[in-house]
Amino acid sequence: MASKASIPKGTRDFSPLEVSKRHYITSTIQKHFKDFGFQPIETPSFENSDTLMGKYGDEGDRLIFKILNSGDFLKKVDSGVYDEKDSLKLSSSISEKALKYDLTVPFARYVVQHQNEIDFPFKRYQVQNVYRADRPQKGRFREFTQCDADVIGSDSLWQEVEFIQLYDVVFSSLKLEGVCIKMNNRKILSGLAEVIGESDRLIDFTVALDKLDKIGEEGVKKEMLEKGISQSAIENIKPIFNFEGDFGSKIELLKSLLSNSEVGQKGIEELEFIQKVLQELPLQTATLDLDVTLARGLNYYTGAIFEIAAPEAVKMGSIGGGGRYDDLTGIFGLKNMSGVGISFGLDRIYLVLEELGLFPQEIKETTKVLFINFGEDEALYALKAVSKLRASSISAELYPDPAKMKKQMTYADRRNIPYVVLAGGSEMQSEVYNLKTMKTGEQESYSIENLINKLSNS
Amino acid sequence: MASKASIPKGTRDFSPLEVSKRHYITSTIQKHFKDFGFQPIETPSFENSDTLMGKYGDEGDRLIFKILNSGDFLKKVDSGVYDEKDSLKLSSSISEKALKYDLTVPFARYVVQHQNEIDFPFKRYQVQNVYRADRPQKGRFREFTQCDADVIGSDSLWQEVEFIQLYDVVFSSLKLEGVCIKMNNRKILSGLAEVIGESDRLIDFTVALDKLDKIGEEGVKKEMLEKGISQSAIENIKPIFNFEGDFGSKIELLKSLLSNSEVGQKGIEELEFIQKVLQELPLQTATLDLDVTLARGLNYYTGAIFEIAAPEAVKMGSIGGGGRYDDLTGIFGLKNMSGVGISFGLDRIYLVLEELGLFPQEIKETTKVLFINFGEDEALYALKAVSKLRASSISAELYPDPAKMKKQMTYADRRNIPYVVLAGGSEMQSEVYNLKTMKTGEQESYSIENLINKLSNS
Repeated sequence: MASKASIPKGTRDFSPLEVSKRHYITSTIQKHFKDFGFQPIETPSFENSDTLMGKYGDEGDRLIFKILNSGDFLKKVDSGVYDEKDSLKLSSSISEKALKYDLTVPFARYVVQHQNEIDFPFKRYQVQNVYRADRPQKGRFREFTQCDADVIGSDSLWQEVEFIQLYDVVFSSLKLEGVCIKMNNRKILSGLAEVIGESDRLIDFTVALDKLDKIGEEGVKKEMLEKGISQSAIENIKPIFNFEGDFGSKIELLKSLLSNSEVGQKGIEELEFIQKVLQELPLQTATLDLDVTLARGLNYYTGAIFEIAAPEAVKMGSIGGGGRYDDLTGIFGLKNMSGVGISFGLDRIYLVLEELGLFPQEIKETTKVLFINFGEDEALYALKAVSKLRASSISAELYPDPAKMKKQMTYADRRNIPYVVLAGGSEMQSEVYNLKTMKTGEQESYSIENLINKLSNS
Repeated sequence: MASKASIPKGTRDFSPLEVSKRHYITSTIQKHFKDFGFQPIETPSFENSDTLMGKYGDEGDRLIFKILNSGDFLKKVDSGVYDEKDSLKLSSSISEKALKYDLTVPFARYVVQHQNEIDFPFKRYQVQNVYRADRPQKGRFREFTQCDADVIGSDSLWQEVEFIQLYDVVFSSLKLEGVCIKMNNRKILSGLAEVIGESDRLIDFTVALDKLDKIGEEGVKKEMLEKGISQSAIENIKPIFNFEGDFGSKIELLKSLLSNSEVGQKGIEELEFIQKVLQELPLQTATLDLDVTLARGLNYYTGAIFEIAAPEAVKMGSIGGGGRYDDLTGIFGLKNMSGVGISFGLDRIYLVLEELGLFPQEIKETTKVLFINFGEDEALYALKAVSKLRASSISAELYPDPAKMKKQMTYADRRNIPYVVLAGGSEMQSEVYNLKTMKTGEQESYSIENLINKLSNS
């Protein structure tokens, strides 16, 4: 009857300390989402399969977790279909629901379904778990948390400015300085493909370009040639392989490169607007960089593209990203809704804060004070104080059993509880509580009022 | 290609207002969990099937959502098994994982798996979603949130006292006064069955007794007779059908009824301890009642049993419950771990607060202030103030487009934004911001410093 205690691969249990650290990050992000006027929504953990299938490409479809229909699920299966014994065909007959793969498609579904209750432009945030049947590996899980903020129903570039500010404010709050907000624009990429005469190879062109930091200039050129992009075309965009300088000088370079592309000019205009506004509203700790190789899910984004790089000291890759998409809700029948959004990568931000030692010390503290249990009368005396401390929002515990002193002190120590109260017969007589500071070993007696004061201010 | 926008039956989308109201409840509960020294853990949304199957009885097994194996899941299925076309048999060959059905079994699995990292007694809380393939109906969903707190590794009755205090403090914080904490003890039920000579019909006896408030005295007697309990046995416990009076007088009654039952006496002792302590530490707004008909999952509980009744004015049934179980982790091979825990019913508490109008007004407010967008220069001037307000934790928005005034004002109104700032050319010249209070229509000009002050304090 006894089952082995284990969890599915790619999933995780979170210990109290891990939950607290994750909560520190998500609550910081959520606080700023709210300050920026975003409102929370939540969608179910699973959706109807047809809401999700076909939205993430073939590879995505394979990674979607399907839920088996309940009850006698084979009863409704056509026997012809059953006899084929084909996993893919059978799965659509025995499964109608699927775990959500990301927050974006369910959000699009939500917007369409609730369009009459929503006041557009709709600024929403969502912090929920998503599920992917991916091969688990370091930093890649089958259940993980996404933190997204999007605005839907406006194509104003002020939103792009605000998302850059939002990234800056969140990472500054987390004391994670030196984050780089890399930006690009789909229109720049289209412009580049256009001026080299390879507009119909836009995807191949950008997929190759996106790999510059991984495979280097020669690697990118090789891939472009393989994809049929001509040698002379590649020569024409040579400058972008060594694209140096600040945001402003990169824009100047692009202006000359893209002088013959209307769409390219439009992209430059958008980037210039953002740059101009941010000169008036400087970022706190992040830097903004123009990265013309940045593509990220190009099929999806139609304007701005963002990606966040962790500070250079940490080898981590992207810790966030996003961009503008012009027709997200079209798949559910609601046309012409421009949207723009960003995402924070909780797991990677966690690893970065851990590596740089940026989690605040307070996170480790759990309960503020443990009352030692010396027996029934003493425990009642203790619980009276415990109740008053809790009423003052000071977390307090009474050790449940009159166990050996050493055992109770070890519990306090291992739990990182900074204070212990010892109150026996003599303390009861004088109506005081003897407070021991665990770090220093110091002990002092306090009346209940002074105990509350002492622990409120420490 | 366009899919219909809908969600699976029994699941819900939560709008911003609903998320805020739910968060108001869960964050209140979590605050007090922490004040009482409970620590948060989280477990995955899905577990290995053998962790869950067989733990909730046959009915429970049927209600567990199973996840289809990924990839070519039929490849490994034995063709003999496949040819039988039996849903139940096939499901265990094509599904290895299942969505969690409650928080308790995964918690037991967690304790066993992490026993070497845990400092016992382990006080943990968990607020997570669970999934049941139940027939959806009013107030019953296929995905819902459970809020549990348990202590494992101590059989101290101080825990029972603290859980009663915890219920009282949480509902008092939520301004939900008049909640009744109904209590019983498995040992009382065993004692009653013993003194009437029906110990081997304990389950039938208590299942019938548990229905007293639904089917009345005659109904209960009828069911007991049908189950083979004798007429004279029923006569012997007649007093409990009309069990009136306060906690203390009920205990006195039980003392005479159970004078010949050792286990019954033990149950009385436990109840008396709790009563004695609570006389010294009176509850704030809840009342404690002894309800000898209360059974709740009797097979599970071994000592105290709790159930929370909403205030009488509201027809709602139980809004929480719990009890002591002596061997929860035994199913995973860790013996002799006594545990006691309680649960809060989020959805029902939500309905009760809604019905009694107890959600605070502030929940409806979203963003504090909207800045009207009059065009590019004005918007930049506005965004400078918006950024400063946000830095002071005042939620602020700039309307993204220079739309018609009426449209922007309507947006503020529908979003329940209490303040609007109008800043055009003349305000920019005088370096002020014109603040309009939506409720009164009042308008006044403020410097940025005074604007921050004004909005911080309102």
